[in-house]
Amino acid sequence: MPERVIIREEGPRDGWQNIEASFIPTETKLDYIRRLADAGLPKITVTSFVSPDWVPQLADAEEVVSKLEPREGVSYGVLVPNAKGLQRALSSVENGAPIQEVCFVVSVSETHNRRNINRSVDQTLSELERPIEEAHEAGLHVSGGLATVFGCSFEGHVPEDSVARVARAYVEMGADELVLGDTTGMANPVQVERVLTALKESVPETQLTPHFHNTRGAATANIYAALRLGVDSFESAFGELGGCQFAKGATGNVATEDVVSMLHEMGVDTGVDLDALIGVARDFGDFLGRPLDSHLVTAEPIRWDAERSVGGEA
Amino acid sequence: MPERVIIREEGPRDGWQNIEASFIPTETKLDYIRRLADAGLPKITVTSFVSPDWVPQLADAEEVVSKLEPREGVSYGVLVPNAKGLQRALSSVENGAPIQEVCFVVSVSETHNRRNINRSVDQTLSELERPIEEAHEAGLHVSGGLATVFGCSFEGHVPEDSVARVARAYVEMGADELVLGDTTGMANPVQVERVLTALKESVPETQLTPHFHNTRGAATANIYAALRLGVDSFESAFGELGGCQFAKGATGNVATEDVVSMLHEMGVDTGVDLDALIGVARDFGDFLGRPLDSHLVTAEPIRWDAERSVGGEA
Repeated sequence: MPERVIIREEGPRDGWQNIEASFIPTETKLDYIRRLADAGLPKITVTSFVSPDWVPQLADAEEVVSKLEPREGVSYGVLVPNAKGLQRALSSVENGAPIQEVCFVVSVSETHNRRNINRSVDQTLSELERPIEEAHEAGLHVSGGLATVFGCSFEGHVPEDSVARVARAYVEMGADELVLGDTTGMANPVQVERVLTALKESVPETQLTPHFHNTRGAATANIYAALRLGVDSFESAFGELGGCQFAKGATGNVATEDVVSMLHEMGVDTGVDLDALIGVARDFGDFLGRPLDSHLVTAEPIRWDAERSVGGEA
Repeated sequence: MPERVIIREEGPRDGWQNIEASFIPTETKLDYIRRLADAGLPKITVTSFVSPDWVPQLADAEEVVSKLEPREGVSYGVLVPNAKGLQRALSSVENGAPIQEVCFVVSVSETHNRRNINRSVDQTLSELERPIEEAHEAGLHVSGGLATVFGCSFEGHVPEDSVARVARAYVEMGADELVLGDTTGMANPVQVERVLTALKESVPETQLTPHFHNTRGAATANIYAALRLGVDSFESAFGELGGCQFAKGATGNVATEDVVSMLHEMGVDTGVDLDALIGVARDFGDFLGRPLDSHLVTAEPIRWDAERSVGGEA
């Protein structure tokens, strides 16, 4: 078990990109990003340079990053789905946006990749070689994002060999970190142990960052399985944001506050102020007009006193 | 990891006892208990012989058990909080109610036990000696329930020694099984490993059955930690019922359907028909007029086909 875990907050990207009912004003986005930084999140993905036709909610990507305040101890990142997205990110960086990280994406599942971007996995990887170099030339930390690592809604089981092959390709192109996306929420802890063990053999020097969705309630179990193998970096989103936000129930990313609570209770440090983070999630629920789906949005953090009960009873 | 896990469904007891806004008609209760049995749950706690002044929702305990249909392969149980509760259960059994199991309760935390029943832990245990004998004389399987095993809202940390002491007292009195209640939802996986390891040394011959609440979202992680130590018996409640039902959010028992989904995905058999169980939880949400809080109530079980996406995307 690691003593300290780094959490990359994905709420402003993976959480908000799924909110379609109304546009979150740019200043509101910036306010919540500021509060997430205040709460001690060491890494925050603030937007995605994706086509506004695909994700209208993030059409203000340039404006968000241009107005970001640099913050000691906080590394801001963006998702760049392709070479064009990287060019937009690099232009912003040239104009002074305090972005330190980019994350590319490819699906391990051939079918999922083709349906999303109409290219084979190999073609997508080859098209990322030059963008990864360019990102490095601009001094950016580069994450290689792998989607459908733990299962594909079209192909079902995704072989560990395929995951390892994409991971090695990213590492050969120079990726500093690999983000392992449980895109479809199909991961289970036994599989997590198997996949991570395979990757620790294939790319032993590379930082591995699982990104679990809590679609079926197993995300904290998956995180615990990864922690036991020494993994010390995770992505999550406050409020369990992500997935379809207007279906009741929780099908989003694992909630940062639930992860932080569990880690702190186990004695693992995150540097995050849990109460401040819960405040962010509760207030954003008020902004949306519905409570978010994490458990800590409702429950109190674990503490006790002789006069007041904090847990459930009986 | 066990190959097969036994789940005791606690929805009709721990779930319903917290529903205060309206009385669930006895026939409705019986209908849902029947559907839970149809879904393959091997053990179902159907009610509690608690004072109706404390829990008005379960005031029909005698009627529920008298109208239960015996079912091949299903063991029905009741909670008996004290000697008086046992007498009511035994009277029902004498009158033909198909009850095979009873579960007693004592809090490991002195403060919690005193606040709940105005007695010390030792006094409570000594008062259970004769009832456990009587239950055995009536041919019933006896579970010793331990509350606040993983933390107390008054005392905070509960020493493993105290847990082991209560466990040994139960086993010396003849308890066939110990139910380990995470009454306050304070358990974390590292602690679960520690407590279960201590109990496996103290009471090595006795079936251990954790009962995790998902108050802070860590319940499936706790279950995975227990599974890794060979624990093959758990309590849970469909729909994440339990705790306060009319606060939005999930502060109840871990949801049976989320547990079953994770177990099946890991290759652990439960004998439960997941789709049928999800149907029960969805229909009971319709009955209550609000969706329940489990993840599988919203998400689909894991399956895939080339034409239709079942998971979240990207």
